[in-house]
Amino acid sequence: MVNVLVTGGAGFLGSRLARDLLATGSLEVAGSGAQPLDRLTIADQAPVPADLAADPRVTAVQGDLGDLLSPRTGSSGGPAPSVLAGIDVVFHLAAAVSGECEADFGLGIRANLRATEAVLAACRALGTSPLVVFASSLAAFGDSRDHRLPAVVGDQTLPNPQTSYGVQKVICEQLVADYTRKGFLRGRSLRLMTVCVRPGRPNAAASGFLSSIIREPLAGERAVCPVGPQTSAALASPAKTIQGLRRAAAADDESWGGRSAVTLPALTVTVEEMVAALARVAGPKAPALIDWIPDPAIDRMMSGWATRVQSDRAERLGLAPDPDFASIIEMHLAETQR
Amino acid sequence: MVNVLVTGGAGFLGSRLARDLLATGSLEVAGSGAQPLDRLTIADQAPVPADLAADPRVTAVQGDLGDLLSPRTGSSGGPAPSVLAGIDVVFHLAAAVSGECEADFGLGIRANLRATEAVLAACRALGTSPLVVFASSLAAFGDSRDHRLPAVVGDQTLPNPQTSYGVQKVICEQLVADYTRKGFLRGRSLRLMTVCVRPGRPNAAASGFLSSIIREPLAGERAVCPVGPQTSAALASPAKTIQGLRRAAAADDESWGGRSAVTLPALTVTVEEMVAALARVAGPKAPALIDWIPDPAIDRMMSGWATRVQSDRAERLGLAPDPDFASIIEMHLAETQR
Repeated sequence: MVNVLVTGGAGFLGSRLARDLLATGSLEVAGSGAQPLDRLTIADQAPVPADLAADPRVTAVQGDLGDLLSPRTGSSGGPAPSVLAGIDVVFHLAAAVSGECEADFGLGIRANLRATEAVLAACRALGTSPLVVFASSLAAFGDSRDHRLPAVVGDQTLPNPQTSYGVQKVICEQLVADYTRKGFLRGRSLRLMTVCVRPGRPNAAASGFLSSIIREPLAGERAVCPVGPQTSAALASPAKTIQGLRRAAAADDESWGGRSAVTLPALTVTVEEMVAALARVAGPKAPALIDWIPDPAIDRMMSGWATRVQSDRAERLGLAPDPDFASIIEMHLAETQR
Repeated sequence: MVNVLVTGGAGFLGSRLARDLLATGSLEVAGSGAQPLDRLTIADQAPVPADLAADPRVTAVQGDLGDLLSPRTGSSGGPAPSVLAGIDVVFHLAAAVSGECEADFGLGIRANLRATEAVLAACRALGTSPLVVFASSLAAFGDSRDHRLPAVVGDQTLPNPQTSYGVQKVICEQLVADYTRKGFLRGRSLRLMTVCVRPGRPNAAASGFLSSIIREPLAGERAVCPVGPQTSAALASPAKTIQGLRRAAAADDESWGGRSAVTLPALTVTVEEMVAALARVAGPKAPALIDWIPDPAIDRMMSGWATRVQSDRAERLGLAPDPDFASIIEMHLAETQR
């Protein structure tokens, strides 16, 4: 039996992971093998989706992570059980996204740095060394135009992040590694790629358009592409991303291969190739719904991310990139039409 | 005219830097050239040495950095001028050392992480983008026995620190880089080597014995060496270390060469070579004063540090390692005997 906490569990990735855990009813946990899911706590500052909250195995908790993890959260003012009580595995996905953190420096410090510190300190306080999967990001690497960054980045590349979001991810990776070294928890930092196609509405991430320019035309709506067709991106489908998160929880210390971050495999495509795949899958009318309106701020932030990754440790764990972009579009279509 | 703050200014390195600044009466500052020293603020939780406090150019401030940098530090409880008011250049040397941080995890977070965050936030609040030289450390790199760390580490090596002290240094380097990118300050992170020969009494740094085994025998006293003779270390003399800190303040953004940390050049020696040099300089009686008493904890922490460095960016700035260990001993003798 395993008790799981997903932070940011009302978000796109967190709620997808939660649904996946509930649907399979189990989670493979490092050192313990496949475990039936006993309880799933979903914490988020946004309301937890109704279908998730309705599941009898789910405890939905809404609020600021720092507040939720303080020892005294009882509404009566008295001591209340921590949202972490009895938790075996934490998927820490809660974060403010890149665009927000560039616009509001303090928000990034609070939502990414302080909240992660609160999660780690609360895990330490449990005294049970829980397993913590930390969702880091491609943004940790930095600018692919920077001559100091190799053309292909990987697990051994020196991060040189060019956004506050990326800096905060690198910092949290280091904290996760040190808490792990001290035996306070068993941490796995996994650098996620840009997830595409994200369902739903655009978010404040600078990379949001990479989903919009596919998702909206498929639904017959117009979308804005703020960068040129030659812009590259390192992508992973939602399914590959969830698979990576679950694999991180399953991997024992030895096969995980160290305390530094593991880079998820990516499919590298240009926007032009994405749009060509869209035309192949959905016909020529779909790309015609894209308005090409350059946005220098987004272009600058996008060019601050690496586009080609070599994922040695992830590949040794059996993780692979999506085969091509058309298959990503088809997966999105199949999911939204069912 | 330049106003300088040295944090940790009562410590060995900070007080030496302060004396150097007062003796020369000037500091070369990036973009401004050599500037006469107007005011030198020395902040430390320990009392500032009397000779420094007596200098009319010195403002000595004793207390916790976090408290000192909060907007309200007046003893009357009212608003008081920040210790940073009017400061052009900060040398941020204050830190809890490696041994302390391993023994007390919370101390490291407070004294290294929170205090540095307070310095950076206070510098940002000035609104004048002051120059901040951050003393990082060789400990950032990690374990030379780790197969993931190259035999020779340098400016582009992925840090894989194996102590909380090293982790906190890497984190602060990232914060300095991001505050610099945002234009809140002009940061230079310089990874210092183990400073040897440190004068005075042993401190809680795991590397303290590297000075003790030279300093004490030269003074006719016994010293303990807790590691074997084949243990290597990457050293820099106090003079080379101060030169590096001043060079960091002098270098303009372009010649500094990026926002990531610069690695100070090091002389790599084994303990055996150090002791042989001691015998050459001070005669065979000196090494006989060393008691070889292994300490597994210190041995483990020492082996967690890299020992061979390639300092490309520092060399381009004109910085070089000490030529040999005998010259380091002779420098120490000349200073303690004058």
